Amino acid sequence: MSFRIRLPEGIDTPTVVVDLDVLDHNVATWAQRFADRGVGLRPHTKTSKCPQIVARQVAAGAVGLTVATLGEAEVLADAGFDHLFQAYPLWAGRDDRARRLRALHERVDLMVGVESAEAAAALGVAVRGTDRALPVLVEVDPGMHRSGVLPADVAGVARAALDAGLDVRGAFTFGGHGYGLCDAPAHAADDEVAVLSAAAEALDGLGIVPAVLSAGSTPTAQLSARPPVTDERPGTYVFHDHQQVTLGVAGWDEVSLCVAATVVASHADGRFVLDTGSKALASDRPAWVDGHGKIPAYPDAELRSLSEHHCVAWTTGPRPRVGEVVAVVPNHACTVVNLVDELTIVRDGEVVDVWPVASRGRNR
Amino acid sequence: MSFRIRLPEGIDTPTVVVDLDVLDHNVATWAQRFADRGVGLRPHTKTSKCPQIVARQVAAGAVGLTVATLGEAEVLADAGFDHLFQAYPLWAGRDDRARRLRALHERVDLMVGVESAEAAAALGVAVRGTDRALPVLVEVDPGMHRSGVLPADVAGVARAALDAGLDVRGAFTFGGHGYGLCDAPAHAADDEVAVLSAAAEALDGLGIVPAVLSAGSTPTAQLSARPPVTDERPGTYVFHDHQQVTLGVAGWDEVSLCVAATVVASHADGRFVLDTGSKALASDRPAWVDGHGKIPAYPDAELRSLSEHHCVAWTTGPRPRVGEVVAVVPNHACTVVNLVDELTIVRDGEVVDVWPVASRGRNR
Repeated sequence: MSFRIRLPEGIDTPTVVVDLDVLDHNVATWAQRFADRGVGLRPHTKTSKCPQIVARQVAAGAVGLTVATLGEAEVLADAGFDHLFQAYPLWAGRDDRARRLRALHERVDLMVGVESAEAAAALGVAVRGTDRALPVLVEVDPGMHRSGVLPADVAGVARAALDAGLDVRGAFTFGGHGYGLCDAPAHAADDEVAVLSAAAEALDGLGIVPAVLSAGSTPTAQLSARPPVTDERPGTYVFHDHQQVTLGVAGWDEVSLCVAATVVASHADGRFVLDTGSKALASDRPAWVDGHGKIPAYPDAELRSLSEHHCVAWTTGPRPRVGEVVAVVPNHACTVVNLVDELTIVRDGEVVDVWPVASRGRNR
Repeated sequence: MSFRIRLPEGIDTPTVVVDLDVLDHNVATWAQRFADRGVGLRPHTKTSKCPQIVARQVAAGAVGLTVATLGEAEVLADAGFDHLFQAYPLWAGRDDRARRLRALHERVDLMVGVESAEAAAALGVAVRGTDRALPVLVEVDPGMHRSGVLPADVAGVARAALDAGLDVRGAFTFGGHGYGLCDAPAHAADDEVAVLSAAAEALDGLGIVPAVLSAGSTPTAQLSARPPVTDERPGTYVFHDHQQVTLGVAGWDEVSLCVAATVVASHADGRFVLDTGSKALASDRPAWVDGHGKIPAYPDAELRSLSEHHCVAWTTGPRPRVGEVVAVVPNHACTVVNLVDELTIVRDGEVVDVWPVASRGRNR
């Protein structure tokens, strides 16, 4: 295993540690890959939540930034970023939401997702009287059956959006069914391209030339980055995690984030216990991922169970001693970052900075 | 379904809502149950994390409070509580940890868990020179195989603790293997009683009359509250959740916590989507629990999948409209509370208070 993160001596645990060199490598190489294809990168910042990371992504040439919530958009706007896409079927039909949406629309270049006539109408009401129409992208379902409409219904939603006075800029999709082994990412990427192509045709039928046809997740982004797709929205690529390595999207040497954990028990039956439970590693565990994470220094150890403050690992190989500190690569970096108030930034095994997780818990 | 929480009009989402009347009912009835059995209640505060709730538990007669981490203990000490048990095999072998442990030991009546000679030695060094010995409880494994030693090894750990200058007050165990259907809680409770009985004998052999033999979780606490057990450590009972209702530990009318969520998409195929993903509901999902939570107003809906900001539900019955706000009972209240900075307290459908989650994220 070519895991590159070295934990600083004496680090307290559990602590989320990010290696700056590996992070910078990921930001640079992914930016280059999409530039080479002529496809824009609109990174999803629900993962990193830190303006320091977002600034690196923008410097590397991002065409815009993606957020999941108005709260995340507000944090980025406060930090000076101004090309924001809320890739979510935003419901603006409440006074507080309408007020926040309108304020953002007046402050930055904001674009939001829409997938129903009801939500379109509410968006229109929320921004009524502002000096330009609110840009929206229609969400298309690539077969994941989360949110989004079927390609056949894109024209109907777009028409409702036009009727509500919105500026229909194009469409977006999320091939989250690519989170699986074997050909899942490739098939999901094909689905993304297919439904965006169909959406483009539907919009064309309404006289709209789509400026944005946006796809992508970390597993599918490199696979769907081809016409007519205009941009991709991967997020996890800045950190990677046990899921991405299992999928073959990244090598261990590209994992920039881990959770430092202390061994609090070690037993002759091959079991050892880390002080890093679901409140530090998160409980995310798809069926195709082996255990609750991976310990590069003890690759034979299986992280079998998590409680809130315990992670129980079993190994038939060497076992760490009580008090030893190890690096754990979590299954899903996005939910881990959302658990902590700050990231400890290291380089060559030394702490070089501490970054507040500025949009932690900003779920509204 | 006799679900009692009424959401306030116009509430923003996702928001964690707690009904004060139901909470007070749970605190009072559980206190009475243990008082009736002559067993002490030492509630685990990793669940509630709010001094306002802890104060109610103390007023109802708690013999002490349980925490998972030094950080949680510090928050409670700052709030004026002073009988604290860290039910965890604390590793104090680092300078910062040793300093914090010593400061707490000098401030409040602190008791900690120990399950190895190495950890005992580190605890002894950490408090060396203070004016009284640090009280410890030896952790015994009830067959869950998380932390804790076998009953046969209790004497060895206790001897190491005595050698380290610690005050061995007794033993504790956690029957977390009671989190399962059918007879799992009853069997786990029997296991708790059995290993604490054996631990008491082992301590007796060293001339120690155990003052504390502590068991319990919300599913097992009422079942193991019998001699020689002296106290129980349930935590979730203040809120309950989908897990506890599934286990038969509580009725829907005893669930005091829910997540308010807005329907952001609703489709003719029976699917609807809530703005309440794993960053609001947490990803905890044991195999024996049906879906990612329950919506009392739409009991036929199955919460099939969670993304970070979406919960996808399917129903063959009535479907909520886009923009509708519903209450979702999460699978596991403890990890949900740890995601938010505050709890919105309601009574009769009106907001009566907002409580900061004082020890959110205090995992060290």
